[in-house]
Amino acid sequence: MLAAMTRTPLNPADDAFVARLPDGIVRPLEPRYLEERRGFFKGAGGLLVAPRSTEDVAAVVRAAAEARVGIVPYGGGTGLVGGQVMPGHPAPVILTLERMRRIRGVWPEENALVAEAGAVLAEVQAAAAAVDRLFPLSLGAEGSCQIGGNLATNAGGVNVLRYGNARELCLGLEVVLPDGSVWHGLKRLRKDNTGYDLRGLMIGAEGTLGIITAASLRLFPRPARQGAALMVVESPRAALDLLALAGARVGPGLSAFELISGQGLRFLADTGCPARAPLDPVPDWAVLIDLGLGAEADPEAELAAIYEAGDAAGLVHDGVIATSGAQRAALWEMREQIPEANKRIGAISSHDISLPLSAIPEFLDAVPSVVAGLGRFRINAFGHLGDGNLHVNVFPPEGGARSDYPADMRARVAGAIYDLVAGFDGSFSAEHGIGRLKVGDLQRYGDPAKRAAMRAIKAALDPQGIMNPGAMLSA
Amino acid sequence: MLAAMTRTPLNPADDAFVARLPDGIVRPLEPRYLEERRGFFKGAGGLLVAPRSTEDVAAVVRAAAEARVGIVPYGGGTGLVGGQVMPGHPAPVILTLERMRRIRGVWPEENALVAEAGAVLAEVQAAAAAVDRLFPLSLGAEGSCQIGGNLATNAGGVNVLRYGNARELCLGLEVVLPDGSVWHGLKRLRKDNTGYDLRGLMIGAEGTLGIITAASLRLFPRPARQGAALMVVESPRAALDLLALAGARVGPGLSAFELISGQGLRFLADTGCPARAPLDPVPDWAVLIDLGLGAEADPEAELAAIYEAGDAAGLVHDGVIATSGAQRAALWEMREQIPEANKRIGAISSHDISLPLSAIPEFLDAVPSVVAGLGRFRINAFGHLGDGNLHVNVFPPEGGARSDYPADMRARVAGAIYDLVAGFDGSFSAEHGIGRLKVGDLQRYGDPAKRAAMRAIKAALDPQGIMNPGAMLSA
Repeated sequence: MLAAMTRTPLNPADDAFVARLPDGIVRPLEPRYLEERRGFFKGAGGLLVAPRSTEDVAAVVRAAAEARVGIVPYGGGTGLVGGQVMPGHPAPVILTLERMRRIRGVWPEENALVAEAGAVLAEVQAAAAAVDRLFPLSLGAEGSCQIGGNLATNAGGVNVLRYGNARELCLGLEVVLPDGSVWHGLKRLRKDNTGYDLRGLMIGAEGTLGIITAASLRLFPRPARQGAALMVVESPRAALDLLALAGARVGPGLSAFELISGQGLRFLADTGCPARAPLDPVPDWAVLIDLGLGAEADPEAELAAIYEAGDAAGLVHDGVIATSGAQRAALWEMREQIPEANKRIGAISSHDISLPLSAIPEFLDAVPSVVAGLGRFRINAFGHLGDGNLHVNVFPPEGGARSDYPADMRARVAGAIYDLVAGFDGSFSAEHGIGRLKVGDLQRYGDPAKRAAMRAIKAALDPQGIMNPGAMLSA
Repeated sequence: MLAAMTRTPLNPADDAFVARLPDGIVRPLEPRYLEERRGFFKGAGGLLVAPRSTEDVAAVVRAAAEARVGIVPYGGGTGLVGGQVMPGHPAPVILTLERMRRIRGVWPEENALVAEAGAVLAEVQAAAAAVDRLFPLSLGAEGSCQIGGNLATNAGGVNVLRYGNARELCLGLEVVLPDGSVWHGLKRLRKDNTGYDLRGLMIGAEGTLGIITAASLRLFPRPARQGAALMVVESPRAALDLLALAGARVGPGLSAFELISGQGLRFLADTGCPARAPLDPVPDWAVLIDLGLGAEADPEAELAAIYEAGDAAGLVHDGVIATSGAQRAALWEMREQIPEANKRIGAISSHDISLPLSAIPEFLDAVPSVVAGLGRFRINAFGHLGDGNLHVNVFPPEGGARSDYPADMRARVAGAIYDLVAGFDGSFSAEHGIGRLKVGDLQRYGDPAKRAAMRAIKAALDPQGIMNPGAMLSA
């Protein structure tokens, strides 16, 4: 496909191509559209377009399909695996959704909302809150990531345990397909068995099968009473037992159950991040438990009962229960600053993995030994324990730096950890996706029959290979 | 594709084909494999095979792919749209999953279970209950339908409001693809963003893209306290307001919210079904509310509070709250017998539709007038109001019979109702699927861009068109 594309290489100065586009959508290409947060990928250039409408997007896709030039959809730019930045030539059309950020409608009585793809996640959350509803997708980047990107990557975050991933939060989509046709699938239905699950397929396809332009999203009643606690646990095994105990007690009232390591808490202090865990001494392991309950319930009492039951079972031995919204927010602020502290320390390699819940203790026991053969490291393993999703990040020892290690160390560390994950039948990409960073990992760890089916689907829907070339599958 | 298939028409007496199959899987073809409950379709014959293993299924698919013969996967045979019965020639291989019904494993601490496709839904429910967990998929046919068929049709049922459709209850799949390769995707992970959502695509594809041989399923803690009530509501609008009120009060504790019409209750009496609603006089509209709450909660008190709030708001004016498990079961028995009563009366046309919640009152108001032009009818509209999914069934007037109507009446009634549904942006198939009955409806009411994408996906994964030919898409 790339060979075919070189017949008509795109140049931003190519007036013939620009002339085919709707007026007023070409923008100066600022460097930020060619960069990504982790610095692994650098875009080589291209033509930046900022469509105002679905019709504009369709016109761009039709022009690109005719000229056989690649299109890279661009949301908030917060992705961690390079799905939004295409290096190499020929340079693509970079299509930013930032001008399509309207909330098209809100139906509180149906618990539904329709947002355009460029709406910032926090704006979607606010539109739901304005009608006393909850849009539960919540992640660190929510102030800048866009709902279209959240859906294209099937984003996860802290509330998946209760409400599901982005895919589960979406009722319908409007998508411009690779031939420029528009799928008008913005239904607000809970049940709709009229054909293949194109909605599910487009979600998580990272822009390789079409461009999501709008989505119909599920809202929920806002929990009347919320509460949070930080509890010190003896071990990851004890954390899992406490999770089961909390689930049995409050059932669906359990909104989040996050594992926090002592290493992560020490990084907060080491890097000058203002947040601190209100625990002394710093424990090896703690869990942040968040509840959302009905009007008649008492979250503090429920959390106290969970703690007492955990104490009686020898699972917990210290902790704090938030007694105000401000204290709850402070606990979450501490949790959310851990990635920032990680960034300041500087990871050699970061791994967004998931495991069957029961495998997690053995996995965490094994991680230090599988990387020990490669060098001396500090490991910060934390994340969404309730979903079996951990972020296992590997850092130089105190006083060390990434530059002390050979250039291929990232690949070697990642290989050791992903091999371990595969042995437990886990996933090398739980919530961040494949992007360009993990294309080789998908080749190595993905199921061969599934990979063949993916290639067949890609070739069927995007025969020219113009949609986000090189993401998900090698170009 | 059918033209190509006629080159090597399959005959059960064709020794050359049978010789390619694993030993011991060919069975005598009993008539029940060629019939379906509603009598719209009658299979023309074929070769019945009952594989014992995934390897057997793969061998059958490889042989069929080489010989270009169609394969119809057969589960419990309870589908309502003819997906399991292929009329016409050449006759297919009918592949029943009934010998593959093992529960391969149960992981209560992970809330997960792996079942083979032929496991009867009630067996899956029982395997979960045996470890004090809930597998929440529940529908009238649960004593005979199979989990593979439930997934192939993305089954719904009474607990979708709380737990989602079959698709949301599935973590992973094992599937034999149309080339005979096996996708080993039985992961027990809550988050796994490693490529396109093949799981979601296979679920609801009705056997047209592959044969599901096993599934990894989500379990849930069993609600500690359950309760149910039947409440008389003033109107469908009042029912919706009561739904909102109940949702605000008990949030995710609301397990089901079913609408029941006076016509349905009168049918129970007219047809001698033993179940009765404990209400006198028979109301025009009632709702069955089911709660599943934590150990500390009191379902009867919650239901009483919902009733009182509904009474204060002028929404309800009579009702009963179950005060024992037996009373709760009796209310559900009454609900579950309504389809049996419908069958005894004999519908002219049945419609499994869904609507945006807010459109339901106006829709139900309009139904009698849109069918009135076609003749005199009785209408029983009932179902899963909480999901916006109603079963709208049209019957002859008292003393009348189906045979009083012209042969094309079913199509005319369905057309009038589906046109009305389409006007409200609803769906003509909420939970039953397309099968063979609604292939034309999908042509008429489906989105053209989505239909084109479906055809491209079908051609890419099943280029010879051997998988359940004529289901979902015309052959």
